[in-house]
Amino acid sequence: MKIIKIGGDKSIRLDFVAEDIAWLWKKEKGDLIVLHGASKYRNEIAEKLGVEIKKIVSPSSIESYYSTPEFMEVFLMAYAGLVNKKLVAELIKQGVKAVGLTGVDGRLFLAKRKEFLYVKEDRKIKMLKGDLSGKVYEINKELINLLLEKGYLPVLTVPAISKQGEILNVDNDAVLFELVKAFGPDEVVSLISAPGFLQDVEDERSVIARIEKEKLGKLLSSAKSTMKKKIIYAQKYFEFGLQKMYIGDGRVRNPIKRLLEKGEGTVIF
Amino acid sequence: MKIIKIGGDKSIRLDFVAEDIAWLWKKEKGDLIVLHGASKYRNEIAEKLGVEIKKIVSPSSIESYYSTPEFMEVFLMAYAGLVNKKLVAELIKQGVKAVGLTGVDGRLFLAKRKEFLYVKEDRKIKMLKGDLSGKVYEINKELINLLLEKGYLPVLTVPAISKQGEILNVDNDAVLFELVKAFGPDEVVSLISAPGFLQDVEDERSVIARIEKEKLGKLLSSAKSTMKKKIIYAQKYFEFGLQKMYIGDGRVRNPIKRLLEKGEGTVIF
Repeated sequence: MKIIKIGGDKSIRLDFVAEDIAWLWKKEKGDLIVLHGASKYRNEIAEKLGVEIKKIVSPSSIESYYSTPEFMEVFLMAYAGLVNKKLVAELIKQGVKAVGLTGVDGRLFLAKRKEFLYVKEDRKIKMLKGDLSGKVYEINKELINLLLEKGYLPVLTVPAISKQGEILNVDNDAVLFELVKAFGPDEVVSLISAPGFLQDVEDERSVIARIEKEKLGKLLSSAKSTMKKKIIYAQKYFEFGLQKMYIGDGRVRNPIKRLLEKGEGTVIF
Repeated sequence: MKIIKIGGDKSIRLDFVAEDIAWLWKKEKGDLIVLHGASKYRNEIAEKLGVEIKKIVSPSSIESYYSTPEFMEVFLMAYAGLVNKKLVAELIKQGVKAVGLTGVDGRLFLAKRKEFLYVKEDRKIKMLKGDLSGKVYEINKELINLLLEKGYLPVLTVPAISKQGEILNVDNDAVLFELVKAFGPDEVVSLISAPGFLQDVEDERSVIARIEKEKLGKLLSSAKSTMKKKIIYAQKYFEFGLQKMYIGDGRVRNPIKRLLEKGEGTVIF
């Protein structure tokens, strides 16, 4: 099994990505799951609708957004509505039997709501209430397997849902981790809006081509917030039997073939 | 089998509707399909985003909207994103294993694009190009049955998709007709933003409680545009084995129990 993760930047070309997923889907005889983001679409829609986007920073310097009910409505519009269905349509155009689902559907991603959130503000730690975010802890494997067995490609995205039926903002990397635990893929392909894992985030020519998984820890000290989170999660994936993780450019034609066949981008092994 | 259709008006209470669907779902042992709209949500979001909403009228006086690419993006946000997932979450809150899908997913509603559209404008018939609407002609029964067999409740909504992978605006009543043809339900329950089928559309006290299906034709002459379409479709449903069609108020508590147990609203038989 392979899992493809697609970032939420608007520069990522869903049509190019769909072309290559169709190729891989046939090659792997349907043993594939897709997980995608939509954060930049969400933020753009929120801005246009006048919905506040409030960045918050955890005590351990992980950035996220304050998830109000209004923010979660825009979240659904962007992730479940716009991007999920556009990607599914692009895949169907390529002959793939794609089915789009969120973590809400059939309690696909079950999460526990964080009743209180601690955030860093002006160097002080404050407690935030009413935030609709959570921590995902269970995947509905049965529903995903049901689709896979019948030859459908599951195209998944956040948000998640709590046992109480609350729609919750959860981290996509955390969802990927739960998928890795549940399905034990040999490879994960992560498509982002950069040509790979960059040594210097400002310099697209600084792609690190090969990283041994044991050396991920060494990268942590120099990494910035979003990358730091990705490295910590990457380390965890390998604890659950992952063989290789590819990180490559989702903005160009043949984003997956470049990684798997031409050796472009980054491979962690 | 029963099919529940939920209108797209914002006054319809998804929480009340979900409560009663949960009751019916248990009563019918899961032999149920839900189809919902979101037209008023869509139009409100379009207005806020500055996306043009252009009403068009067919030569036979059926009203619809000019479906530009921008309009279809908002369509996805409202139907597939906001309303579908909110309804699914409300159902999960009630213990129902609900799964939300659009006609795009797994080519659930296959439609043929109308290359040209004829519209009435200032009493003249004009030809309109570039419209992204179509006529639904096939349902992916296999995918719906797959969910039903495993105890999931399919919560369906438009848009549809063409064989070429175009996302198309199709009429929800036409989708209901295809569902009736495909699944042969004995009863359809339609929840709208009125207490039933009204003799005088301006007077909510003018509910027609009972209509024999043979007499639907007589109502056509006095009916207005949207109702006219619904009557024509209702006549068709009965040609495919439907026993009863209920039309009732989606704005109040126990919208389905009122129809099925208390005899409120309208029943066509």
